[in-house]
Amino acid sequence: MMKAFTKQSLLEADSAFRRDLINSLSGYKSLNLIGTKSKTGQTNLSPFSQVFHIGATPPLVGILFRPHTVERHTLENILQTEYFTLNHVHESFYQQAHQTAARYKGSEFAATGLEETYKNDFFAPFVAGSPVQLACTLVEKQTLQVNGTVLIIASIEEVYVDAEGLRADGSLDLEVLGTVTVSGLDEYYVGKRLAKLSYPKPGKDLEVLI
Amino acid sequence: MMKAFTKQSLLEADSAFRRDLINSLSGYKSLNLIGTKSKTGQTNLSPFSQVFHIGATPPLVGILFRPHTVERHTLENILQTEYFTLNHVHESFYQQAHQTAARYKGSEFAATGLEETYKNDFFAPFVAGSPVQLACTLVEKQTLQVNGTVLIIASIEEVYVDAEGLRADGSLDLEVLGTVTVSGLDEYYVGKRLAKLSYPKPGKDLEVLI
Repeated sequence: MMKAFTKQSLLEADSAFRRDLINSLSGYKSLNLIGTKSKTGQTNLSPFSQVFHIGATPPLVGILFRPHTVERHTLENILQTEYFTLNHVHESFYQQAHQTAARYKGSEFAATGLEETYKNDFFAPFVAGSPVQLACTLVEKQTLQVNGTVLIIASIEEVYVDAEGLRADGSLDLEVLGTVTVSGLDEYYVGKRLAKLSYPKPGKDLEVLI
Repeated sequence: MMKAFTKQSLLEADSAFRRDLINSLSGYKSLNLIGTKSKTGQTNLSPFSQVFHIGATPPLVGILFRPHTVERHTLENILQTEYFTLNHVHESFYQQAHQTAARYKGSEFAATGLEETYKNDFFAPFVAGSPVQLACTLVEKQTLQVNGTVLIIASIEEVYVDAEGLRADGSLDLEVLGTVTVSGLDEYYVGKRLAKLSYPKPGKDLEVLI
């Protein structure tokens, strides 16, 4: 049985109910920890579920920052220094990743026990043990008129990936990598593969590749 | 062992390898079928992995459209009619969902056997059997300077959700709903819950809620 809501009934619903439902509607979301460092040397780490592919040539990534949220240190550091890292959350540390969203005064690395690490003289810290780590630099910032959401576009300068999860064709095996996905604001999952499918063409049956 | 790539080594790599790797870097992605109808009555259905939360009050959703891709019918229909639907992909029809990305001349509903259905006089077609269905109207369009990617912001006007997967707090149980997630361009997964966690606060241990 389908339960129906109109925009009006959503706006009249309890605000926590509305927030939890609307945040769940897009389905499973990418989960990344963004690592930054302020100009004064204070590191910051925060979970983000709004990271997405913008282009491969050149490699570009986009991130949406909600207006007036706890992640503002991350956005301020990116705008001021132009450097940040993206780090997949491994199932061994998803609870620490969730805890980085608490309103700490100091670094979330120290507070949660996640270890910061540096590579190749890149300014921003990576998360040690993360199976996929990206070094990114700011390219473009846009603010959405509708509600002040900020869209950041960044260049992917370096990629570090656990070799066990990197296939010869370039695709990643997220099960082998132990990458975690999030639903809504607080619910974490790992993936169970259905299949990797062949390129779809009219009149041709799909093949299960893996 | 971590395998490292620089931007330069990615740009020098085989283009298919680069495309598959860069498309995998954000991790698990939301998967939705977008249903549209042209002004002349031709329906269209296409899979999208770039759907994300913009706001809850009012309920808003965002979608990124890559420049010069096969999904242009979808974007054209949205810009011309201002109506579209978002539909979660259930594991029972993920292969048909993948097949809708083939370059059909007619409707992808007829070509793949997915059934179009209409609700409450909304102009665009829903996918029958989808566990989460949204009726959306266009609010704002922005084009990214960096590579012509188009960002659509839309208002969520109606929500239909399988009541079995809707919890009392408003959150969705994506396992019960059978919602599918995608990695890269062609790899499909369902989720296996690790936990739903309590709100993170400094100095307070997290609780596993579910």
